[in-house]
Amino acid sequence: MNAPDFDAAFRDGFERLLRWRRDVRRFRPDPVDPALLERLLGLAALAPSVGNCQPWRFVSVAGEAPRAAVRASFLAANAAALAAYEGERARLYAGLKLAGLDEAPVHLAVFADEATGRGHGLGRQTMPEMLRYSVVTAVHTLWLAARAEGLGVGWVSILDPDAVHAALDVPEAWRLVAYLCVGHPVEAHDDPELQRAGWQPREASPVTLLHR
Amino acid sequence: MNAPDFDAAFRDGFERLLRWRRDVRRFRPDPVDPALLERLLGLAALAPSVGNCQPWRFVSVAGEAPRAAVRASFLAANAAALAAYEGERARLYAGLKLAGLDEAPVHLAVFADEATGRGHGLGRQTMPEMLRYSVVTAVHTLWLAARAEGLGVGWVSILDPDAVHAALDVPEAWRLVAYLCVGHPVEAHDDPELQRAGWQPREASPVTLLHR
Repeated sequence: MNAPDFDAAFRDGFERLLRWRRDVRRFRPDPVDPALLERLLGLAALAPSVGNCQPWRFVSVAGEAPRAAVRASFLAANAAALAAYEGERARLYAGLKLAGLDEAPVHLAVFADEATGRGHGLGRQTMPEMLRYSVVTAVHTLWLAARAEGLGVGWVSILDPDAVHAALDVPEAWRLVAYLCVGHPVEAHDDPELQRAGWQPREASPVTLLHR
Repeated sequence: MNAPDFDAAFRDGFERLLRWRRDVRRFRPDPVDPALLERLLGLAALAPSVGNCQPWRFVSVAGEAPRAAVRASFLAANAAALAAYEGERARLYAGLKLAGLDEAPVHLAVFADEATGRGHGLGRQTMPEMLRYSVVTAVHTLWLAARAEGLGVGWVSILDPDAVHAALDVPEAWRLVAYLCVGHPVEAHDDPELQRAGWQPREASPVTLLHR
């Protein structure tokens, strides 16, 4: 087969996509076109997966009760996290906006199906975490594809994964990998919100490379 | 700030990139330009990370002894995996080419620094796996960026991560997330090698979406 041609203009665009992909926590309430969301999920399913096992499972969370349960889990985990900081760091943490759960029109919970028979276990014997890593690449694919469509994604990890699992009534063998807020961002940036807020700057030399 | 414009031509190119990114196990021996590799690592460092902690650590493995140790770990893990299959499945497994370790000019081991102070623990209290997931997004970024430059990447997970860690003499707190072969691919495909080899086809409906 002939390999496709990726030219310099595409590569420039791809670098711009990487630079402007952000963890978004500030959303406009405008709905997301369901056809667009379906397209993004289709692209996410092109992600690599160990043994070609395609272990990603998506749950769109729109109901009042499950959203309230997720919000409660976030508030509890966030309060516990705040309590672990002291002084100036606690003051900084308290001022951060760490999730767009209340505003984002779309919530997507993304699970790894730990019981899948697909892939016949290939590549998972010594590194079973590869199943969940495969789901992470699908999440990242969706994130980049969303940004290319003008949408923002925020990954909320300040949650009790077991509480989210229970609230969404999914199969026992599914494990929460990511809880995503998706919607139209209020603003665009090419630097992380945590850098602008003074929490953690980017490193001047962000690559550590050893030679062996 | 003004958001950048991603047009339909770019989005088409991005979808093509996703479709032609493959797990590559067949490499030409031609060297990879070190400047290009450096550029790819710089792009990988634009990946998202929990708390902006940038936990990825890269090791270029070129020495004879560490490469021999990695190869030995692969052979042992692969033999153990083969022994666990029976009949036709074992015959299929034995015929698969699962790594390009012998041919790939560049080997990259990618670790998560579990002891990093960057990010001040934000987002990792209830989901500590977020640190390693952040490294996975950097690996995936590098993979896509490499493909856009005509390079192939293969992720080898049939390895004992502790054996690789020991062979590379890296800090105790680093945890192996991925071992990558990088180089010029012998051939290009838009379908997975494991599908062509009859191991595991892609699903006709690769997206499972529940509503809650």
